[in-house]
Amino acid sequence: MAGSKPGPVVIIGGGFAGLACAKALGAAGVETVLIDRHNYHLFVPLLYQVATAALSPADIAQPIRRLLRRYPSVRVELGAVETLDTVAHEVVLADGRRVRYGRLVLATGSVCNYFGHAEWAAHAPCPRDLPDATAIRARVLGALEEAETVTEPQRRSALMTFVVVGGGPTGVEMAGALAELVRHSLRRDFRAIDTRLSRIILIEAGERLLSTFPEPLTRYAGERLARLGIDVRLKTAVERIDAEGVVVAGERLPARTVIWGAGTRAAEAAVWLPGVAAGRGGRIPVEADLAVPGFGRSIFAIGDIALLEGRDGLPLPALAQVAKQQGEFLGRALAHELSGQGAVPAFAFRNRGNTAIIGRNAAIFDFGRGRRMKGRLAWLLWAFVHIYLLAGFERRLLVATQWLARYLTGQRGARLITRERDEPPPGG
Amino acid sequence: MAGSKPGPVVIIGGGFAGLACAKALGAAGVETVLIDRHNYHLFVPLLYQVATAALSPADIAQPIRRLLRRYPSVRVELGAVETLDTVAHEVVLADGRRVRYGRLVLATGSVCNYFGHAEWAAHAPCPRDLPDATAIRARVLGALEEAETVTEPQRRSALMTFVVVGGGPTGVEMAGALAELVRHSLRRDFRAIDTRLSRIILIEAGERLLSTFPEPLTRYAGERLARLGIDVRLKTAVERIDAEGVVVAGERLPARTVIWGAGTRAAEAAVWLPGVAAGRGGRIPVEADLAVPGFGRSIFAIGDIALLEGRDGLPLPALAQVAKQQGEFLGRALAHELSGQGAVPAFAFRNRGNTAIIGRNAAIFDFGRGRRMKGRLAWLLWAFVHIYLLAGFERRLLVATQWLARYLTGQRGARLITRERDEPPPGG
Repeated sequence: MAGSKPGPVVIIGGGFAGLACAKALGAAGVETVLIDRHNYHLFVPLLYQVATAALSPADIAQPIRRLLRRYPSVRVELGAVETLDTVAHEVVLADGRRVRYGRLVLATGSVCNYFGHAEWAAHAPCPRDLPDATAIRARVLGALEEAETVTEPQRRSALMTFVVVGGGPTGVEMAGALAELVRHSLRRDFRAIDTRLSRIILIEAGERLLSTFPEPLTRYAGERLARLGIDVRLKTAVERIDAEGVVVAGERLPARTVIWGAGTRAAEAAVWLPGVAAGRGGRIPVEADLAVPGFGRSIFAIGDIALLEGRDGLPLPALAQVAKQQGEFLGRALAHELSGQGAVPAFAFRNRGNTAIIGRNAAIFDFGRGRRMKGRLAWLLWAFVHIYLLAGFERRLLVATQWLARYLTGQRGARLITRERDEPPPGG
Repeated sequence: MAGSKPGPVVIIGGGFAGLACAKALGAAGVETVLIDRHNYHLFVPLLYQVATAALSPADIAQPIRRLLRRYPSVRVELGAVETLDTVAHEVVLADGRRVRYGRLVLATGSVCNYFGHAEWAAHAPCPRDLPDATAIRARVLGALEEAETVTEPQRRSALMTFVVVGGGPTGVEMAGALAELVRHSLRRDFRAIDTRLSRIILIEAGERLLSTFPEPLTRYAGERLARLGIDVRLKTAVERIDAEGVVVAGERLPARTVIWGAGTRAAEAAVWLPGVAAGRGGRIPVEADLAVPGFGRSIFAIGDIALLEGRDGLPLPALAQVAKQQGEFLGRALAHELSGQGAVPAFAFRNRGNTAIIGRNAAIFDFGRGRRMKGRLAWLLWAFVHIYLLAGFERRLLVATQWLARYLTGQRGARLITRERDEPPPGG
């Protein structure tokens, strides 16, 4: 290790950013190691569909190894990063393994942000990973199962109330999908309760929903949510979340199921870097070429974890398309540089358009510069775009099949309440 | 409760037997309650495909509510049975609820049998339910992930050794699917290890594999297993299973992954019945009409849990087709009897044929009376039959798609290592 060979490019994180970076490096034959806690790449934008029983985990998760199989110079390692040794140029894993790097790319993504109320997490899970999504699915379906057996009206009502916190795309998509699941797909399955009487409440602290979209689109989204029977409460801050429900503006909303979709922050990584002060949302400020200042261009950050201003002077949003473009850009740039083909230009983000789905036949698109789209056509476009973005032909076909079946029958395939082997059974 | 209304037919268990019984009762409009610990009906014969990453849990599990939705007289309750009160005619659930029955149908199925070695269960999981299957999947994939990072040859070899205990259909199918997963599907995904060098060992205590099948078919199965590179050891009893592997005939086989497929016994239910002595395999002896003697024809047992002799004087096997036929028969019989249409005839089993699959292009069928089939045609028939037996059109299409994709590409879609939210990450 005595400073001989420079060591491979090591990427931490196999999300959109890390995967795109590894592919670009692999295509150029650069020695690369990708480290992730999970063996799969997750298509996070469709996670809410797993949480609402429309898709299965495997439909939106692909083994990272399989995605990178064709690049012999890329190695995949399953492991949790404990810290970095920026002097020895080593990544230290939780099991003690050390992986030496020539260049290091941080792409650890984002986690849920409870804004200082970590104690809410137990009562209001947040869909960021597969176990979160299947846990939310079990909670939602389990609440209705229990409501079916309970006769006390107040308890039954709390079991049939679903609160979603946060009026951004995550919250809106979750509330819309929940309404369709509970009020439509399940309506003929119960005998003692009428699931159409379930309440879905969407709580947003700000003045309007989907605040990153233009006003007319958010108005449309509000109308569609109302048509789905969702009780949207704007300018409403959450004061408390506990096992009994939510307290907002002094009012208690009794609810067994509360889902958190109110925001994310950068995942751990800034703390591994001595002398680096995290910026807004815990993100790591990077230079125009995505390098983290102070490490002699040996450390880079991409995706949700990187803080970089766009042309408009605002930080680039934590979106899959930003992550993907940065990963691709950095992979190519490092390959060029390592083969001695000269310096790296500045990263420029090309906005492909922003989208959110509210429900059946209802989505919105904002392509920037006043170009936008809404309604059934936008919904179809949303579906095509998401199927196109899913990796792997088989997966595309599976998801398309399930969406078509759901569109035609209103039914959902993945309504499983699963738990680990040693947990007690329900009602036990 | 004062002996007024007789109470509904209560079925415990939503497997093949209980579900078929509920459908028959529902079709006749008989008041029925089906109680299960899970919200889903599981297609157990394909569970090994979930354990070997070929299918997703939702592909082989359907919500019981959905399957019974069209029968308004059937109610579904999620709950674990604690015991029975055969005097008050009540089922007592673990959460204290009591469900009164007019007639009671026990259909609790079977569980893994470690033949008095319960301590082996922790080291050798057995695929009987979804969490078992996803846990096995995580173990198999996790062992190879670890092998990729380990350099010590003996440890690596133990990580790449997979022992399957039991040469019945479960063990043979599991071993065959494991061989295809590890030695073929994954072969290009790793860099440090060659997964084709993995060892798969199938251990059977008896003289031959698949002992319920005719000799020529089991010989064929043995040849196919050998061609898949599986090390089959007959007349070999397991002496010990621990974290380091298996001891057979004084020889230690170091293996990180051991899978138990050596047998099942009837699930708990006999102990709930005062005065009933369980028969072979913990099964409840029943009369020709499936009634449990001693309860005035108010309690019945069907499926794996019932002990009934067939025309050949041997106990009917614990098979899906027996369970389904008994459920259907009893449902119709009870509907007849409850509508005053007279006594119930004796149950007669019609053998539809026995089948087992060894791997790609290799399956066996035994239709009885010397009629049998093997090879590629049998394999195709196996696939058609299993797709036909799966409930629900969407599910059939999904499974067919995945099988076709796997046949053409050799790849598997559901290679996820998942764990519950609060478990530590790997290597952590």
